[in-house]
This record gives sequence, C-alpha cells and structure tokens, in this order.
Amino acid sequence: MVASDLPRRIAFLGFGLIGGSIAGALRVADPSLELTAWTPGGRGPAAGQRLGLIAHAAASPEAALDGAELVILAGPPLAILANLTDLAGAWRANLGADTTITDVASTKRAIVDVASESGLAFVGGHPMAGREASGPQASTPDLFAGRPWVIVPSTGAGERDVARVEALAGAVGARPVRMTADAHDRAVAAISHLPLVLAAALAEAITGAPDWPAASGLAATGWADMTRLAKGDPEMGAGILATNAAAVTDRLRDLRRVLDAWIDALDTGGSPDAPALRDRLAVARAALEPGPGG
Amino acid sequence: MVASDLPRRIAFLGFGLIGGSIAGALRVADPSLELTAWTPGGRGPAAGQRLGLIAHAAASPEAALDGAELVILAGPPLAILANLTDLAGAWRANLGADTTITDVASTKRAIVDVASESGLAFVGGHPMAGREASGPQASTPDLFAGRPWVIVPSTGAGERDVARVEALAGAVGARPVRMTADAHDRAVAAISHLPLVLAAALAEAITGAPDWPAASGLAATGWADMTRLAKGDPEMGAGILATNAAAVTDRLRDLRRVLDAWIDALDTGGSPDAPALRDRLAVARAALEPGPGG
Repeated sequence: MVASDLPRRIAFLGFGLIGGSIAGALRVADPSLELTAWTPGGRGPAAGQRLGLIAHAAASPEAALDGAELVILAGPPLAILANLTDLAGAWRANLGADTTITDVASTKRAIVDVASESGLAFVGGHPMAGREASGPQASTPDLFAGRPWVIVPSTGAGERDVARVEALAGAVGARPVRMTADAHDRAVAAISHLPLVLAAALAEAITGAPDWPAASGLAATGWADMTRLAKGDPEMGAGILATNAAAVTDRLRDLRRVLDAWIDALDTGGSPDAPALRDRLAVARAALEPGPGG
Repeated sequence: MVASDLPRRIAFLGFGLIGGSIAGALRVADPSLELTAWTPGGRGPAAGQRLGLIAHAAASPEAALDGAELVILAGPPLAILANLTDLAGAWRANLGADTTITDVASTKRAIVDVASESGLAFVGGHPMAGREASGPQASTPDLFAGRPWVIVPSTGAGERDVARVEALAGAVGARPVRMTADAHDRAVAAISHLPLVLAAALAEAITGAPDWPAASGLAATGWADMTRLAKGDPEMGAGILATNAAAVTDRLRDLRRVLDAWIDALDTGGSPDAPALRDRLAVARAALEPGPGG
C-alpha cells in the first residue's frame, strides 16, 4: 500500500464516471503514469482523451492490455463478468505474466467467484463513491477522497496483486477496507441497492397515479432526494441488482415488514396514535445519528 | 394578490423554520411591517427577536393577537388544531372583527374542516418548501422563492381574507395555487408524506440489522439522500401523518404492491432477468423526467 506498489502502465476496460474519476485522480497524483482505456463503443475513452484524463484511447481490448501492469475493469457489472471470461480465454495471450486485474463494480461475490474459477490474478474492488451523472464528462478527481474502497481478493491473487490495488485506492485518496465478498454484498444491499430499488419503486408507485400531474407541481426537495437514485444508469442498476439479487431480496422483505407495521399504525379509521407515531419517528431519527465514535 | 392587500400587523402563533423564514422574507420585502410571535415555550420568538426577524416576542397569545390583522398559525399540525379551538373560544375576544387567520401546515383537510366548523375567517395555506433543519435559527428568507403556496379557503373566509393570504405568499416570493383540501392532501401524501414514511422505514429496517455497524461505514450519498427526511422533527412528522393518515395509507398500499413486484422479479433463485430489470429501471427513470412543459 505504498506508492511504489502502484504500477506505471494502467489500462481501463470500460470508462465512465468511475473510470474517468480514477484516471483524473491518478493524473493529479502522478502525471507520468501511462493510462489507456478501451470500451466497446469507444465514446468514453475518446472523451477521456479529449479531457486529458488518459494519454490515448485504445482501438481494441488487445491494444489496451498490451504491456499493462494493472487492468481496471470499469464497465457495468455484467460487462465485467464478460470481460473476465475473455481475459481467461481470448485475451489471455495479451495479458502480461504478472499483470494484476481489478474492478470497481458495486457487487463482489458473483464477480470474484468467476475470477477465482478462472485463476486470474484478480483483486475485486469497490470504491464507495458515486454520483447519478454518468460518463467521464461527469468525472471528478476528488470523488474518492476519504471514502472507503472495499478490497476482495480472489483465490488467484497474490500479495503483490493486493498491494497494487491497495496502492491504487490510496493514490486516489481512498481508504482500502478488506472484506469478504458476502459481507460486502450484504452491506451494500442495505445501504445502496435497497435504496436504489426503493427510489425506483417510489417513482413507479407515484408517477402512475391519476393525480401525478397535479402532485408533481408541488414536489420539493424531499421528493427529489427520495427519487435521485432512480435517475442513474438503468444498465448499471440492472447489473447491480442481477448480481446481488439474494441479498437485496432479503433486505426488501425486511423493509416490507416495517412498511406493514406503518400501514397498521396509520390505518385506524381516522384517529392514529400521534404520540406513538412521534416516538417511532424519534427512534428512527436517533438510529441515524452517528454513534459515540461516529 | 397585490401588495396593498398585505396587512401591516402580522402575528405568528408558533415560530420555527417556516415562521422564521416567512418573517425574514417579509422584513426584506417591507421593513415597516409590524411582526410579532408567540409560542408556548417562547424560545422561537426570543430567537426571532435576537435575529431581527420580528420586532418583539409576545408574552402571551392574547398579546400577540392584540391588533393583528393577519394571524399565521405556524406550529406543528396538532398545535394548529388546538389553536383553532382556542381562537374560536378563549381567544375570540382578542381577535379583531376583520382579522384573517391562516396557517402553514403540511395537511389541510383536518385543519380546514375544524376552521370551517368554527366560522373563523380562516384561509388554509401550505408553502411547498422546507428543510430538515428546524427553528428560526435555520430560517432563510429565500426559502419560498418561486415555490407553490397552496391556498385552501374555509367556508368562513371572504374574498378579502383570501386576497390577504395570497398577498402574503406573493410577498415572500411564492406562487399561490388554489386547491381543494382533498386534492392537496392526496398530492402531498404522494410527494412528501409517503417519502417521509419511507425514509423512516428504511432507517428502521436497516439500522436494526446485525451488520449495520459494518454497513454504516460504507454508506455514501445514496443512503444519506434516502434517509434525510427521517432526520426531521418527529413532532412535526407525527402531526402530519396523524392528520393525513388515510391518504398516506392509500399511497403506502400502492407502494407495497410495487415492492412485491420487485421481490418477485429478484427472487428467482439466482438468475434474475437483467434486461427486464434494466427496462423497468429505464421506465422509472423516464417517468421522473420533466414532461414537454416541465
């Protein structure tokens, strides 16, 4: 996790908000790093080159991999799964003997399992930062400053691979946190993926109602806050939910039980117990307060 | 709705974030207005006086009402209901013959019904703006700029009363919108009160789980956005939910149906239909886009 562990030649497969923000932060940290990027459509890398985030856009995955010491898989989760298959197959000849592979996806178990089966020197990563905007145009080099960056090594990763990925996290200002894939996926189901489903479900339930045109005219910051996550990239969201479905389903069931209790508390035929509602809201608010160490 | 309709002597019963913001905006609009405020505990008016939002804090409700041409009920919803009973009873002698009464509560039917039964010259109001912070210390005079301010006259209100309240809304930069109490309450159940319950329910469901300490360390802006509403004043929230329980319950049932469909889509024993999830998220996102006129 020292700066010297960070390789000089770094290739991105997939290059959007997260990839662009990593590249931007790396260029600030060390302008001499050799950064390249490839995506199937080529728009992200072209924008990254224009913005000065990377030195050049690679014309093919093989060209991007050529000579790379660290490969960062930065596409949507399902694209990363496909990348791993290709890296273990068609692209294997283009990988250096000691190249380290990492990713930045929001789910880890499905991806790390595939990587472990492939024998690749793969260390899963998840920088806990993001914005609803997408693309390298929306990137910002301080996106990761002070944020956790979860690290989940696959069985094919050695100590040096882990050190390289921890050095990557440190170079962009993040704080590496080692976790198991399962603990990570359960945790992000709670604080990130359930909120995404909830934001989308709120949008579905309310915008479909007959009085939505009138109601939408009154919407203020509360509505905007509660639906912001549903404005993210659907491809990304679908990949996240598809690769973490079991943990998200568990959380959804927990939430449904709580909502049923709210319905019971409110559906009293006209006279809900206001002091009980106040106490319940006060407990929820207190639970959100930082603890003694927070 | 012209400035000359705005009375000179205005009294607040209840004085927190909204009352303080109204007073601050009125002082900017016309420093010669005579503003006073009373609350049961007296802390809000004392702070308002210190901050220069009002000329003086009234020692009693009777003193606040004395000579007031416009009375703004700006406490929590249940306090406003109690105020209306007192205004029609013990405090009636202190009300001028042509004093207009209004309020700023987030629900209208329960309050306007009580006002209509009392025969008071009451025009319900709801400025569609707010913050999670509370108290006049958190007030800001531009809180209402460009926002809708819903107007719901009671049966005892005359044209001049309505004109005065519309002038109040206009003076602080808001846009008066006439609605029925039922249409208002259904609309705000959708865009404001259901989101409040949802934020609290999310906090309850997740912070009670055994892995909350680990998960909370990873929480980012998405979690903060989705729980912000649960950090508001529990007294205010309980009053809102208690006086709009039927509409909120209806919305909660709509949402539960949508969540059940999400559980069905995700609980497939390991292989959710990712393209279907993507399409569903894309539809939700599109529904949140402003329409051609938005």
